Amino acid sequence: MTLGSELAEQPKVVRRLLAEGWPDARECGRRLARVEHLTLAARGSSDNAATYGKYLFEGLAGVVTALAAPSLVTRYGLAPSFARGGVIGISQSGAGPDVAAVVSEARAARAATIAITNRAGSLLARSAERTFLLRAGPERAVAATKTYTATCVALALIAATLAEARGRSALSLAGLDLALDEAVGLDPEARRLARAIGRPRHIVVLGRGFEYASALECALKIKELGRIWAEPYSSADFLHGPVALLRKGTPVLVFAARGSTGSEGRSTVDGLRRRGARLYAVTNDPAIAERADGAVLLERPLSEALMPITFVVVAQHLAIALARLRGLDPERPAGLSKVTRTR
Amino acid sequence: MTLGSELAEQPKVVRRLLAEGWPDARECGRRLARVEHLTLAARGSSDNAATYGKYLFEGLAGVVTALAAPSLVTRYGLAPSFARGGVIGISQSGAGPDVAAVVSEARAARAATIAITNRAGSLLARSAERTFLLRAGPERAVAATKTYTATCVALALIAATLAEARGRSALSLAGLDLALDEAVGLDPEARRLARAIGRPRHIVVLGRGFEYASALECALKIKELGRIWAEPYSSADFLHGPVALLRKGTPVLVFAARGSTGSEGRSTVDGLRRRGARLYAVTNDPAIAERADGAVLLERPLSEALMPITFVVVAQHLAIALARLRGLDPERPAGLSKVTRTR
Repeated sequence: MTLGSELAEQPKVVRRLLAEGWPDARECGRRLARVEHLTLAARGSSDNAATYGKYLFEGLAGVVTALAAPSLVTRYGLAPSFARGGVIGISQSGAGPDVAAVVSEARAARAATIAITNRAGSLLARSAERTFLLRAGPERAVAATKTYTATCVALALIAATLAEARGRSALSLAGLDLALDEAVGLDPEARRLARAIGRPRHIVVLGRGFEYASALECALKIKELGRIWAEPYSSADFLHGPVALLRKGTPVLVFAARGSTGSEGRSTVDGLRRRGARLYAVTNDPAIAERADGAVLLERPLSEALMPITFVVVAQHLAIALARLRGLDPERPAGLSKVTRTR
Repeated sequence: MTLGSELAEQPKVVRRLLAEGWPDARECGRRLARVEHLTLAARGSSDNAATYGKYLFEGLAGVVTALAAPSLVTRYGLAPSFARGGVIGISQSGAGPDVAAVVSEARAARAATIAITNRAGSLLARSAERTFLLRAGPERAVAATKTYTATCVALALIAATLAEARGRSALSLAGLDLALDEAVGLDPEARRLARAIGRPRHIVVLGRGFEYASALECALKIKELGRIWAEPYSSADFLHGPVALLRKGTPVLVFAARGSTGSEGRSTVDGLRRRGARLYAVTNDPAIAERADGAVLLERPLSEALMPITFVVVAQHLAIALARLRGLDPERPAGLSKVTRTR
């Protein structure tokens, strides 16, 4: 039950970060205050957190933010000029050579470099000028849970300090702790949703805007743990082609937050149901929950930009439940190891 | 046979661009000469071309390059500060409101703005300061072929002029025309490869570095035309989780170029075959073709950075052949229209 207990630890880990993480975040924010652009380097789940980070850094702090193409550094010897920018490497273990290589390259070019990692003294931490330490305690399950949410919170804290330094409006983190308590408690609802979805071989997972990262991470978890072909898409991009995959009864899971993307979310749900999809939702919008064939509804108030941190906890519950329905052991996903070292 | 004839036109379209496109490219290159960063805004196939463009602009011209998150502009009213950067909007039709909105936002902030489109006078062309016109002639098939390769060539021409302006080493386009002739002629080999792959419900499509875009575009075509669940991944990221999807006999298609990623490509192929995958390749590396259960081998010499433009033509042949094997009409993909207008 390593995975389950690490999942349940998330509110505690996030409370610890909210209490102790600000000094690290302010250090990072100061170092990044005058960069012309940001690059986020990561793999796997951390790369999904980086996608969330892109929305935070561009949307809240106003800094154009790229996701790194590490092979340009490690394979082609064709790194871009990082000199006037910032590079943030993200890795739970801090052991990935390619992420550290991007950070080292940037540091040699005198860019601002930051490591977000759960391991002080790791290769990644040693490569960067500053480290934001996740303080999540050891993560032993192969599937990342608490380090994923901790990374998202770290990115939000850094983006919040950077937004302040650049005179953009602040991000309120109020209520995040209580919203995580709620999400962790939604295990029965997530299991009910899993039973409604059943044992499909495929599923489409959609999210728009800030929720795109939720779709990416949920699909990755469903692939890793449930061995189901889960296709993540921005709902905008899904309509540009992949919608051809839909047949009558194809399950589609939508992450939909109330607010800026709310009315579009509702029409996406209606449109896909008209095309015959079975429509499931993780949402804080009662109107979407009502339209769906099954939903987990979150009710705690929280800033739209932070909802992905709570939605993903429901996604973790759901992926575990889908794996169990297929008779798989989520503690021992097929063919995976905890640390993957890409060079 | 609209699709087939547009596919076959590609060498002509590319020759026309190589003959007539340089003045547009130099205009664009001059406008971008001093930007601090680049953002590429696109959807669907054009977004896959943008991924290729990211590797060109970062690797050859040295400019940190982000892919746009259009919803920050169109949904959240939280655009990043584009002021000191460049934004390139890419759309065959030029009709997508969200891509044009990102370009307009950037232009209002006095960023350098460029449209790459096949339609002079389109919404996108009117939104940008400069237009690179694809000159591909009308594209009527729903699945993009010639406008995809034309976009890739446009990006290569612009990146080449920008690399020169920034004192980075030049990109040679020598041999691109002949390499495209070869690729268009490989239809029988692609059909043979399709028969070897058969009629799977799923396929994994991998590419590394510059070839990552080939994997994305090939998977999209296979989804659109063949209605097969095609999972595209960087081979580096695939090993971080999604590898759990593999079962004995799962088909994996690899785009693998000789050169910087060559030895890694060979060990990826060996590793996945050991895990029981049926391994197929589009490659110019005889050692990879030999290791695979089926391959299309390209032989014309061409710069590694340009290989994706020829590999993708083989991918188009392959997607059409896979669709036909399943009794589908690639001229009329299910549920799709040519222009998708995301707001």
